[in-house]
Amino acid sequence: MANLMENSDLIRQHRIEALMTEYAHCIDDDRLEEWPDFFIEDSVYRVITRENHELGLPMGLIYCDGKGMLKDRISALRTANIYEPHTYRHMVGAVNIIGDDGEGLRVHSNFTVIRTMHDGDMSVFACGRYLDRITDRDGTFKFSERLVILDSRRVDTLMVIPI
Amino acid sequence: MANLMENSDLIRQHRIEALMTEYAHCIDDDRLEEWPDFFIEDSVYRVITRENHELGLPMGLIYCDGKGMLKDRISALRTANIYEPHTYRHMVGAVNIIGDDGEGLRVHSNFTVIRTMHDGDMSVFACGRYLDRITDRDGTFKFSERLVILDSRRVDTLMVIPI
Amino acid sequence: MANLMENSDLIRQHRIEALMTEYAHCIDDDRLEEWPDFFIEDSVYRVITRENHELGLPMGLIYCDGKGMLKDRISALRTANIYEPHTYRHMVGAVNIIGDDGEGLRVHSNFTVIRTMHDGDMSVFACGRYLDRITDRDGTFKFSERLVILDSRRVDTLMVIPI
Repeated sequence: MANLMENSDLIRQHRIEALMTEYAHCIDDDRLEEWPDFFIEDSVYRVITRENHELGLPMGLIYCDGKGMLKDRISALRTANIYEPHTYRHMVGAVNIIGDDGEGLRVHSNFTVIRTMHDGDMSVFACGRYLDRITDRDGTFKFSERLVILDSRRVDTLMVIPI
Repeated sequence: MANLMENSDLIRQHRIEALMTEYAHCIDDDRLEEWPDFFIEDSVYRVITRENHELGLPMGLIYCDGKGMLKDRISALRTANIYEPHTYRHMVGAVNIIGDDGEGLRVHSNFTVIRTMHDGDMSVFACGRYLDRITDRDGTFKFSERLVILDSRRVDTLMVIPI
Repeated sequence: MANLMENSDLIRQHRIEALMTEYAHCIDDDRLEEWPDFFIEDSVYRVITRENHELGLPMGLIYCDGKGMLKDRISALRTANIYEPHTYRHMVGAVNIIGDDGEGLRVHSNFTVIRTMHDGDMSVFACGRYLDRITDRDGTFKFSERLVILDSRRVDTLMVIPI
């Protein structure tokens, strides 16, 4: 009985990690048009520094309210095309299911992103935590909220691709 | 039958990885007062370079024998407060259960730690292996031994926060 | 019934990740003589830049066709010994089982490798994707194909140890 319960925990953990995995590959493979589909319609996506997050300051580097804004962001990025080409490589780990707050599963995880520029230069572009609320939509896990908390206050102005 | 056995393996792997995850978040979230609770009373925590470890030299950068020394370490860190503020971000992977030596599960894993300074500067602070002995205490996995083997011999003198 | 199916998925995912884990430790622990055993006899191992891979250019930085070439590579590396000593630390994540193409499981994953030189200098040496075909040989998963796609076009000439 205990094992059966633990089994369902394993399956849930696996499904959450699969979502993280697909999200990472979507961005790293430059399939950005598919990125908004990881979110529900009335979702929130924010990128904020750890410092501002801890001070309770709402100022984010990126603030998207609703899936429409996510799509707009990708359209703008593809059209403007004024940035130097670069790619990301996400590593996500320490995926911790905190609990269920009624509106979805709250999940915390760690990430690092290595950025590679067109000339081949590689660097640690960002690291920090994802604070997520994840909900089941017809058998598929999606983000109703994804807060990206950056450890560093020194953020490259070149943040066009979502993290 | 084989599947049932493999299922218990999955559960054990999941519990070990959950321990690693909680340990990482504890430190990265600066909840250092909770850190000693990942260890049993008569535990060993050591940080040592790969070079010294391979030469069999016992000299560690940090050596804590017993949970009391872990608590003292955190107290000292909080009181002295003479170091430049910084945070860690742990990535842990390749978690490999080697076997059970009677005193607990021996587990090897890989880690990297990105350090972010108060001014926002990020760098790979440390990478290496955890060589652990993990034991069950009333249904909770705890470390009876955690050896942190650093790949680099060039260790920042600024190692106050545990890895 | 659904849970049983999902259970077998969990076991398969676990076995794949265990393979990735053992591969990483084998290289990082400098047990390079064991490295060819992760491949079947008529396997392919290639290291190629993302740019060339996307352009469909076959030119690889490393090309090994068959397990014999993998063994030769390690023998040469051990004998020549003309490179500056260094070690790798692999982090592998986002392990995604794409499907079964009849010849084996196709699996994509992300990796980063931190390289530590003998003087202690650490740096992000490589990051990118593994594109694998994995097959079952008498109950053990092995690579029939491992393509290492490097994000950066700027590849250190000092690539002697396999990735």
